[in-house]
Amino acid sequence: MNPYLAEFIGTAILLAFGNGVVANVLLKESKGNNGGWIVITFGWAMAVFLGVFAVSKFSGAHLNPAVSIVLALTGKFPWADVPLYILAQVAGAFSGAVIMWICYKDHFKATENEGLKLAVFATGPAIRNPVSNLLTETVATAIFLVLVLLIIAPTNSLGALDALPVALLVLGVGLSLGGPTGYAINPARDLGPRIAHFLLPLGRKGNSDWAYSWVPLLGPILGSFIAAAIYHLLM
Amino acid sequence: MNPYLAEFIGTAILLAFGNGVVANVLLKESKGNNGGWIVITFGWAMAVFLGVFAVSKFSGAHLNPAVSIVLALTGKFPWADVPLYILAQVAGAFSGAVIMWICYKDHFKATENEGLKLAVFATGPAIRNPVSNLLTETVATAIFLVLVLLIIAPTNSLGALDALPVALLVLGVGLSLGGPTGYAINPARDLGPRIAHFLLPLGRKGNSDWAYSWVPLLGPILGSFIAAAIYHLLM
Amino acid sequence: MNPYLAEFIGTAILLAFGNGVVANVLLKESKGNNGGWIVITFGWAMAVFLGVFAVSKFSGAHLNPAVSIVLALTGKFPWADVPLYILAQVAGAFSGAVIMWICYKDHFKATENEGLKLAVFATGPAIRNPVSNLLTETVATAIFLVLVLLIIAPTNSLGALDALPVALLVLGVGLSLGGPTGYAINPARDLGPRIAHFLLPLGRKGNSDWAYSWVPLLGPILGSFIAAAIYHLLM
Amino acid sequence: MNPYLAEFIGTAILLAFGNGVVANVLLKESKGNNGGWIVITFGWAMAVFLGVFAVSKFSGAHLNPAVSIVLALTGKFPWADVPLYILAQVAGAFSGAVIMWICYKDHFKATENEGLKLAVFATGPAIRNPVSNLLTETVATAIFLVLVLLIIAPTNSLGALDALPVALLVLGVGLSLGGPTGYAINPARDLGPRIAHFLLPLGRKGNSDWAYSWVPLLGPILGSFIAAAIYHLLM
Repeated sequence: MNPYLAEFIGTAILLAFGNGVVANVLLKESKGNNGGWIVITFGWAMAVFLGVFAVSKFSGAHLNPAVSIVLALTGKFPWADVPLYILAQVAGAFSGAVIMWICYKDHFKATENEGLKLAVFATGPAIRNPVSNLLTETVATAIFLVLVLLIIAPTNSLGALDALPVALLVLGVGLSLGGPTGYAINPARDLGPRIAHFLLPLGRKGNSDWAYSWVPLLGPILGSFIAAAIYHLLM
Repeated sequence: MNPYLAEFIGTAILLAFGNGVVANVLLKESKGNNGGWIVITFGWAMAVFLGVFAVSKFSGAHLNPAVSIVLALTGKFPWADVPLYILAQVAGAFSGAVIMWICYKDHFKATENEGLKLAVFATGPAIRNPVSNLLTETVATAIFLVLVLLIIAPTNSLGALDALPVALLVLGVGLSLGGPTGYAINPARDLGPRIAHFLLPLGRKGNSDWAYSWVPLLGPILGSFIAAAIYHLLM
Repeated sequence: MNPYLAEFIGTAILLAFGNGVVANVLLKESKGNNGGWIVITFGWAMAVFLGVFAVSKFSGAHLNPAVSIVLALTGKFPWADVPLYILAQVAGAFSGAVIMWICYKDHFKATENEGLKLAVFATGPAIRNPVSNLLTETVATAIFLVLVLLIIAPTNSLGALDALPVALLVLGVGLSLGGPTGYAINPARDLGPRIAHFLLPLGRKGNSDWAYSWVPLLGPILGSFIAAAIYHLLM
Repeated sequence: MNPYLAEFIGTAILLAFGNGVVANVLLKESKGNNGGWIVITFGWAMAVFLGVFAVSKFSGAHLNPAVSIVLALTGKFPWADVPLYILAQVAGAFSGAVIMWICYKDHFKATENEGLKLAVFATGPAIRNPVSNLLTETVATAIFLVLVLLIIAPTNSLGALDALPVALLVLGVGLSLGGPTGYAINPARDLGPRIAHFLLPLGRKGNSDWAYSWVPLLGPILGSFIAAAIYHLLM
């Protein structure tokens, strides 16, 4: 498996499971309906575990443009590979969201609430305030990435043995810092599925909230620069 | 322990625990009553962990006809052994369901709702639509099996060290893709207990919904062919 | 640390945490009040993990007369040591319950319901039916012990590396088979704290339900004989 | 990274996640609002896992004055380093609380209940009774520290491989012994964030309950002496 395909597959797995658990909790008549934050956060943690476990030996399992950028900024990954990695990640995230939709099609039909349908795909703020929301995404991603760098050190990418620690890291980020914005901490995780929401036939679905979409793009990228700076200072 | 006996024992463990957790959550007056999706999914994850841990060194711990088939399709398991493995798995699943029933006998008596009694044994659709339900079971099983193949690679079967990753995989499948059909992803897991439901004295129990039973049989088998094809393409 | 002291300490840890989580969920005004079955079962799983991790290298971490008996029955533990191990386990369980009570003293005062106070210490049936209850405890313990034997094989006792698998086993037993009787699966776990309930000043506390106490004593012992027989047949 | 900086960073991570999960569950409109005790306890467990994993190789990851003191009392850590370690821990805890506040700023504004705002930062008693509360904190910390000593033995500090066992230990302490006082078991964990609560602009916030603050300071310190004594007796 070449590394770009691996990033595509890994991020598709991440989103099939990640969007899937939100669908299970939010969409009507689903068996996990109303399962609560513990279900959401464990679902995303397993999504990360499985995505990383599956493709780490082929691509280093970034699955996240902010990870690729922070690794490039810290000299652990060539800048020349960053654009194609990001492209593969966004395309994978889009595809994962489509796979989720195939599984939950009838439940989208059964759900009237347009906000819930969007929330299955993309993140949104609990209290809309672009400055605060951007700050939260930036800070949460910076902490996430510093910890990723400390977990994988002294290597340059994620290996299979990093799958569980990184999954627990994402579990922790979700439980503790996910309350205000739903913890995108990954531009591909938000953009790919938002495009899927925009394109897929979901019945009455409302808009895809593009007005907010820059927050989960810019925040994690800012976070990657801050994380690289902190890491340089510390090590 | 010969491998057929091991498959029988392992699948019996899988279903004693797997059906058990559903009984605990759904049946009246049980101490775990109303425990929610997090209880169900962790219960099944532990069921897989224990079944795999117990018998992996004797049979490779398939515990699932779809696993046996995908391993045969990818040249990791001899076709000649598939029929007896499947037979052992279905018989084991049946026996596991009976063990669960022995433990929960009085709670079946205390529960009037016939649908809940059946749901303890066999899977059923949240929204009945055979085409969608088949699609969900097929897609979920295909993803499950591709990940099983990636987890056990480069070996040919599950070892004791695969028990935790595979349990977390099943936790993820349940949390994220289990909402529409209750994630059979295993023909034996559904057929064996459905036969047990048909045969056991459960008081007023309604029919065993044989009309749906082909979905959790056919979906996982289709999924195993798709998973084998994806795996061949990727590797 | 000599092995008897280790069994005492380990079982005290088991019960301080095990009784503690029930206190947290059942007693009035506690911060974990109403936390549900997932809290109870994870609490007991951690109790086992910590008890085993702490003393495995000193005594083999039985922490349970049924474990000592099944190990003796399978030739892995000398019968001569069984009586003192059991004594240490019951005394440890009693002491762990007292430690729990010291932490939750004011919450016992704040709780009027006498049944809840007893349930913190000792197990009780969801539906009282001695034959069924005994059957459930016997079957659950037999499965538990067969899996313990398979987890520790080919060694003769629990090591530190067995702490997590055995904790997950107890998590599974609780989630799946704990619904009807609250999964004693351990005579010391029930008897020691029941004596503590009998002796401690808990305000109005009702009787200690000695009428039921033989079930969680006899069931696990019967289970250990069945488990030894199954293990001999299988291996 | 020098060890004092490492203790600062590690304790900041501990509190950013630890205070964060309480904010997520208690503050209004947060996505994890009302997530329950299982969310709180898993959040703190991940906080410990991440803090220990991140800095164990630089400072031994005490992250808690009671740990530093018990290690000094048992001859595993030089007394001369204790004061600076504690200073770094309290400063780190303060900073972690500030990071949490940056992420949850708007949710503090949205929450009127002053008690909830304080509870995000500092621990408080479920039933106010200084003697009982002190006893609970002392006993819980003593048990916690004896188990820490047994987990890290025969080494002198926490390594990366201790991160998961110690996280599960804190999960267990929270689930089982956290009900009466919210399990400070760490003077820095309480004092640092209480100072942050005192200084930060949180709108109407009430007082910082300094009247109680000595309990989570003194209890864990008493607990460290008891734990050292028990450890000396046992080993």
